[in-house]
Amino acid sequence: MNDFEKVTTGLGEECGVFGAYDMDGGDVAPTVYYGLFALQHRGQESCGIAVTDTYGERKVQSKKGLGLVNEVFDSETLHSLKGNLGVGHVRYSTAGGSRAENAMPLVINYVKGILAIAHNGNLTNAIELRRELELTGAIFQTTIDSEVIAYHIARERLKTSSAEEAVKNAMKKIEGAYALVVTSPRKMIGARDPFGLKPLCLGKRDNTYIFASESCALAAVGAEFVRDVLPGEIVSITKHGIDSDMSMAIAPEKQARCIFEYIYFARTDSTIDGVNVYHSRLTAGKALAESYPVEADLVVGVPDSGLVAAKGYSEQSGIPYGMAFHKNSYVGRTFIKPKQSERESSVKIKLNVIEEVVRGKRIVMVDDSIVRGTTCANIIRMLKKAGATEVHVRISSPPFLYPCYFGTDVPSNEQLIAHSHTTEQIREMIGADSLGYMEIEKLKDMVGELSYCDACFTGKYPMKVPGRDISQAFE
Amino acid sequence: MNDFEKVTTGLGEECGVFGAYDMDGGDVAPTVYYGLFALQHRGQESCGIAVTDTYGERKVQSKKGLGLVNEVFDSETLHSLKGNLGVGHVRYSTAGGSRAENAMPLVINYVKGILAIAHNGNLTNAIELRRELELTGAIFQTTIDSEVIAYHIARERLKTSSAEEAVKNAMKKIEGAYALVVTSPRKMIGARDPFGLKPLCLGKRDNTYIFASESCALAAVGAEFVRDVLPGEIVSITKHGIDSDMSMAIAPEKQARCIFEYIYFARTDSTIDGVNVYHSRLTAGKALAESYPVEADLVVGVPDSGLVAAKGYSEQSGIPYGMAFHKNSYVGRTFIKPKQSERESSVKIKLNVIEEVVRGKRIVMVDDSIVRGTTCANIIRMLKKAGATEVHVRISSPPFLYPCYFGTDVPSNEQLIAHSHTTEQIREMIGADSLGYMEIEKLKDMVGELSYCDACFTGKYPMKVPGRDISQAFE
Amino acid sequence: MNDFEKVTTGLGEECGVFGAYDMDGGDVAPTVYYGLFALQHRGQESCGIAVTDTYGERKVQSKKGLGLVNEVFDSETLHSLKGNLGVGHVRYSTAGGSRAENAMPLVINYVKGILAIAHNGNLTNAIELRRELELTGAIFQTTIDSEVIAYHIARERLKTSSAEEAVKNAMKKIEGAYALVVTSPRKMIGARDPFGLKPLCLGKRDNTYIFASESCALAAVGAEFVRDVLPGEIVSITKHGIDSDMSMAIAPEKQARCIFEYIYFARTDSTIDGVNVYHSRLTAGKALAESYPVEADLVVGVPDSGLVAAKGYSEQSGIPYGMAFHKNSYVGRTFIKPKQSERESSVKIKLNVIEEVVRGKRIVMVDDSIVRGTTCANIIRMLKKAGATEVHVRISSPPFLYPCYFGTDVPSNEQLIAHSHTTEQIREMIGADSLGYMEIEKLKDMVGELSYCDACFTGKYPMKVPGRDISQAFE
Amino acid sequence: MNDFEKVTTGLGEECGVFGAYDMDGGDVAPTVYYGLFALQHRGQESCGIAVTDTYGERKVQSKKGLGLVNEVFDSETLHSLKGNLGVGHVRYSTAGGSRAENAMPLVINYVKGILAIAHNGNLTNAIELRRELELTGAIFQTTIDSEVIAYHIARERLKTSSAEEAVKNAMKKIEGAYALVVTSPRKMIGARDPFGLKPLCLGKRDNTYIFASESCALAAVGAEFVRDVLPGEIVSITKHGIDSDMSMAIAPEKQARCIFEYIYFARTDSTIDGVNVYHSRLTAGKALAESYPVEADLVVGVPDSGLVAAKGYSEQSGIPYGMAFHKNSYVGRTFIKPKQSERESSVKIKLNVIEEVVRGKRIVMVDDSIVRGTTCANIIRMLKKAGATEVHVRISSPPFLYPCYFGTDVPSNEQLIAHSHTTEQIREMIGADSLGYMEIEKLKDMVGELSYCDACFTGKYPMKVPGRDISQAFE
Repeated sequence: MNDFEKVTTGLGEECGVFGAYDMDGGDVAPTVYYGLFALQHRGQESCGIAVTDTYGERKVQSKKGLGLVNEVFDSETLHSLKGNLGVGHVRYSTAGGSRAENAMPLVINYVKGILAIAHNGNLTNAIELRRELELTGAIFQTTIDSEVIAYHIARERLKTSSAEEAVKNAMKKIEGAYALVVTSPRKMIGARDPFGLKPLCLGKRDNTYIFASESCALAAVGAEFVRDVLPGEIVSITKHGIDSDMSMAIAPEKQARCIFEYIYFARTDSTIDGVNVYHSRLTAGKALAESYPVEADLVVGVPDSGLVAAKGYSEQSGIPYGMAFHKNSYVGRTFIKPKQSERESSVKIKLNVIEEVVRGKRIVMVDDSIVRGTTCANIIRMLKKAGATEVHVRISSPPFLYPCYFGTDVPSNEQLIAHSHTTEQIREMIGADSLGYMEIEKLKDMVGELSYCDACFTGKYPMKVPGRDISQAFE
Repeated sequence: MNDFEKVTTGLGEECGVFGAYDMDGGDVAPTVYYGLFALQHRGQESCGIAVTDTYGERKVQSKKGLGLVNEVFDSETLHSLKGNLGVGHVRYSTAGGSRAENAMPLVINYVKGILAIAHNGNLTNAIELRRELELTGAIFQTTIDSEVIAYHIARERLKTSSAEEAVKNAMKKIEGAYALVVTSPRKMIGARDPFGLKPLCLGKRDNTYIFASESCALAAVGAEFVRDVLPGEIVSITKHGIDSDMSMAIAPEKQARCIFEYIYFARTDSTIDGVNVYHSRLTAGKALAESYPVEADLVVGVPDSGLVAAKGYSEQSGIPYGMAFHKNSYVGRTFIKPKQSERESSVKIKLNVIEEVVRGKRIVMVDDSIVRGTTCANIIRMLKKAGATEVHVRISSPPFLYPCYFGTDVPSNEQLIAHSHTTEQIREMIGADSLGYMEIEKLKDMVGELSYCDACFTGKYPMKVPGRDISQAFE
Repeated sequence: MNDFEKVTTGLGEECGVFGAYDMDGGDVAPTVYYGLFALQHRGQESCGIAVTDTYGERKVQSKKGLGLVNEVFDSETLHSLKGNLGVGHVRYSTAGGSRAENAMPLVINYVKGILAIAHNGNLTNAIELRRELELTGAIFQTTIDSEVIAYHIARERLKTSSAEEAVKNAMKKIEGAYALVVTSPRKMIGARDPFGLKPLCLGKRDNTYIFASESCALAAVGAEFVRDVLPGEIVSITKHGIDSDMSMAIAPEKQARCIFEYIYFARTDSTIDGVNVYHSRLTAGKALAESYPVEADLVVGVPDSGLVAAKGYSEQSGIPYGMAFHKNSYVGRTFIKPKQSERESSVKIKLNVIEEVVRGKRIVMVDDSIVRGTTCANIIRMLKKAGATEVHVRISSPPFLYPCYFGTDVPSNEQLIAHSHTTEQIREMIGADSLGYMEIEKLKDMVGELSYCDACFTGKYPMKVPGRDISQAFE
Repeated sequence: MNDFEKVTTGLGEECGVFGAYDMDGGDVAPTVYYGLFALQHRGQESCGIAVTDTYGERKVQSKKGLGLVNEVFDSETLHSLKGNLGVGHVRYSTAGGSRAENAMPLVINYVKGILAIAHNGNLTNAIELRRELELTGAIFQTTIDSEVIAYHIARERLKTSSAEEAVKNAMKKIEGAYALVVTSPRKMIGARDPFGLKPLCLGKRDNTYIFASESCALAAVGAEFVRDVLPGEIVSITKHGIDSDMSMAIAPEKQARCIFEYIYFARTDSTIDGVNVYHSRLTAGKALAESYPVEADLVVGVPDSGLVAAKGYSEQSGIPYGMAFHKNSYVGRTFIKPKQSERESSVKIKLNVIEEVVRGKRIVMVDDSIVRGTTCANIIRMLKKAGATEVHVRISSPPFLYPCYFGTDVPSNEQLIAHSHTTEQIREMIGADSLGYMEIEKLKDMVGELSYCDACFTGKYPMKVPGRDISQAFE
């Protein structure tokens, strides 16, 4: 759920988006800034804010850069961004694709003025679309899908009478996962792909309307949650109010929310599509307790994302919940990694076991996933060294077996321990006394009535996928 | 326990120290760096590392600066610091005394070569000592007490046959709180004031000896805990081994460890003078449950430092423990504070209530202290807004009533809510349904047999104190 | 000719371009870096380098930023740019258009791969072309003309069999001033607009071919001058050698080189289109001596650009040449400007009179231009205060009266002192004893047989111009 | 005379000092800033400003750092330095001794309050004095002589009734070269060593008194030159006016001004001890013409410091003066040096020959010194390549043969070409057609009646010297 987890698990989300439109004309840049802060866990590579005003010259000012929100913006810069309509973005990317040019929001001039776009998600037909566009003379200055989307909106805008229409027509062409916030002169538009793979919600504070990837960002800026943008919905905010276009929506049972938002990506204080993330993880923990009961003295979670599931396991099993770890909250983006030759390991620097808590105890340790297995093995070793007599590992997600084409940065198969090992083999490799993964059929308990995508566990994709990793295709 | 807490409570520790001496001649700068990382919660204003070698030219290289450890050091700088004997420091200071010149370690040339000194604590007779030194022609380039200590060591060194002796003689003059790590050519010396106000411990990894303010820093670098340096003890590490001089020690019952290390400063995974901090806080929570029982549905802790005490309260009372808050771990040193006029409050940005957890519940909320009361009031308001029906506040320390002269940065009396209000008045001001502070007489349960200093609660100082704030006397 | 002059005169050039292609496969980034250094006088706002290789993956790496070449690049970054084909750019811009996004080279993906483009000059039909492109769905991410050029090349490339052809077809559409260096996979193309408004030359060092805005950059990197790229010429460098396409060329007498390159922009050690800049300025000084003889004791030039013309005046008139000024070479881009209330003036800080030289003397002071008149007045005052008995001002260019649409940043009319005052009025306002401007008809002596553009003095533009300032049209 | 020369010749000055005291209570930090700008040629490694006020709390605020004046100070920092009494410093140092801790002014607390000290020069008995101080318990935090001076002032202040007296008594102990500006609460004191090795002058602007290393800094801030501080003089500025103490002065004929200030260090627009630097260099050039006449077509100077002497040679010989070089004014402190393997040389990047000027000419090339000979050889090669038929080199100083102990950073003997080669050998090595060094006996013509130090040419030191290089003794 933050940099620490990213490093330990090797997983990463693609982005967080945030938009704000103050009908009373106040500057929104500080609100976007604090909103991005609350979404920082969704991307730590780069960030940016673009603002315009709806009453004056309608120029766009933007600031983007590599780094965390508090590294990219200083007070002077933030307060120099004037305007009552703004959009912001935090971006995650694997090291290879890390380029200043790829920072968002993307700000473009097109036939109708200036458009700023923030986008979370990956397109599955990006290669075809870029090729198509290039064959009509398009040029690309970044390697992000958002530029493809922007092109389509710009081209469609020529044939339509409104930006909303253009967005809709663009959505007919693009395939894959996307949550979009777009500002066109005097308009703020939010949209989700028909499958609802990526989350987006709407909030309000006084006369300011807000779009955010997660509801936690609404709380951070003192806004009320209004509702989720629905899968396939286009919501448009103008001075005349809110408009909704549902014509791209598909049947609820075909929708495919990313289950990993609930397992790992989203903050526990967010509620997505009516399901609270804390509740969802608690349920996962309970399910694990039902599936894999064990005699033990203490249930502990690996911070931060394993904590709630551990609580659920504890509640269901009756085994006491404990805090076994101290996590160092100062290990940031620019932390100097220990060399192989150095005795300090990254895990030890980030996480320490509280011996007092675990000594002489049989431990149930809950974490959200196992990627390569090395971090998990290290933590188990630390627990045993601290005196734990047994360590039973429970994982609140099924084993990763298939690539994600929608924006989750799952390592390639050869790096995924579950790809080439049985659960028993993995248990032995990590040194656990027992090991249980969340059962695929129980995932549905986490999200109630919602239909979801679990393709990374099952290989059942909700749409046609490229069949190979295209995330670096344009680097 | 980190920047977040510092902001919410307004309290701050003065420093963390770390020293390493590799008998096999390996470079210790990376070890010092990771050690300081583990001590970062003790000071976020500035930091520094000074290294020398014991086999070659014995020059000292140092790097100091304002900022966090990962802001001051980059990989190139860190790996350019060559030498097998090094000392590091993280420093906290109120804004007023924040100066680059005050960063430590202090590196000085004196008659016997170069000496580097890292110091945690405040002297109570610093004014007199500086005056005395000035009257014999001393000049001061910083406003930190460490320079006074360095002067005394240098002057005593002229009359003695060893650096250890000089340190001892200096200790006869200086009064107050100090944990020192000093490197003299080919020697590393650790010392604690006779009262033991500040912690210091000794560790070992292969042939590398380590001093650290807290044992958590030993774990971070993969070292074994050897023992605490005792109050009044001088421990000297040379190639011939470890020497101890206990001649400055006083009777155990006169010792006066800072109780606030256990309540708030130290990391829960540290053990100081034989008492584990986690255990200590758990005990405090249990004591609160005994003193102030209440009918409630859930016990929650304010992250991070209230969490363990909340666990203790839960265990003693049988009321379930819950996680009511999500803390944003990205709010760093350079975070742009919201303006008064902005709707976002610092508290909301840092902390969000998980509604799911608290809705409809009667809550016991445990925190480590109340300073001004405003943050506490904000958090209670958030809980109630999220649906908590009652909020009973339990504070794991007695009310602050007296200034600290030993290095804890307690706000002045007029800012301390407890100074001018009764508990009932405070309860009303913060909007709690009930309020209970840790009872002074129960503090001893937190630390077992150890004698401690609780002067900030009782006004009973273990030694003569200046009677006025001298922390900014030399600015 | 450098930052100092820019400040004193208020004039600025638009850019410098540099390209290098090492047929032997060596890395060219350092060569581009040193080449840009030699062109730094042409633009101090931002700079950038993009490199690719012609033998391997042919990815493009680039680094761009606001600032001088030595501010944007450090050694690590420079040496991380691998590839044997590279292009660089230094950019000048008025404060308003200063945006990180506008830094060049522009790197784009198009149908044939990656293309990097560096461009000096302004298009006169940019507004029409952008509009046209937008109406076919183009999006723009910068406000620079180069993006328009890139689009045209990309679109033309679809219809043609080679990049050279595409450049030629693009040139048929774009109007105005441009010197271009373009790298397409395995090719480096240089081109000048048919009027030759902006300079570009070709050099060679071993097996490395080089394009540069000025020949001084060839000398800086140890390359031999091969020849100028001709007005309207497209020169293409591939592994098969050099190709030239002259089909866009126009009759020599219609060509219109910017005369201001010779008067002020270019370095005195450059030779452009066969005319040496030093020689050109010397000639201007001689012409001034013929036009405006005066009895005086000393001829002095205002550093740096007035020095050579002063030498010419001296040679022609027989009046001794002297060095009256010391220029402070440390006044850089980030210099804190004195406030109005401060007694120090920018002029005094940058320039000091050597009293010894001017005391009691009748001075002829030569400068390249008068824009607002205030700097000139200040310098005259300093000379008189230092004891000069008379100051006769000679300006090596005619009065500015008309806007430039080709990339020279001439202030608007209301700021131009010559626009609303007679020469006699100006003389009185600046406090000179006499004042003579270069006669328009003598400009031709500066450039021999070459035909040139002097529209800023005469209003006779070599092509249709927009009739209003469009330099900020897309901000 | 600036970074460029430093690199080409390998010589460096130790420092520049500047002080300002506004009797009317205005802030002086901006004045000190612009004064330091004008002295930047005296030191580019680090700089600093310390200010206090004489009417209020009399605290001292300071800012110091590595880098040029415009790199270390931004507008916010500069304008935050409040106070009407301030002192500033620019420092040069060889790479080895480059440490942030050594930046000046040195600000110390001593028995009488806070004292800030800026110092130019080296002490010859620094080792003895440090040892003596250490034996009485002194500690040193820097490796600069200024700390030794500060200690002596502090110690003497205990025995005397005024700071001036303390400075005088300190001057009785310290030996070597020094120009000092000291601020003690409500006082600004300037002092020069009895030999007058380093320059210092006094200026005034309205009610602000100013000390500066060179008069050019007075001009830069709009102040009038009042007079030079005399060798051995102590000038004290208080609200009661100016006091002078001449009791440390020695006979004029024993004074020993550094002749290299006139040859190279000082700016041509400065006047030191009544002798104008421009005049002095002009005289040197004339002397060279008398000593070494030659048939030639053009006299050229190597920028910047050779230019005036070239003018003198031209005036005396009647051979025309020409500008043969373009110097790149953007090559700054952080310039990435070409690797050996790269074809670009540092000389070519910094300096280019204007072929037009030198082609077919017999050239007299004047420079201020030859250190290693490599740069000179490179320049001659460039001239010949550009078509010069003969290059006759004239050096406006005698050959360096002896070390300087007073603060001039002359390379060690093995690096000095003149140390081990005859003039004829050097001529051949550098490829000159003839070579003439300034004759030692003609140096006196440069400075009129003043007595001076020429020990680096003659080995005749004005005082006892250490006999070995002690400049790095405390590193």
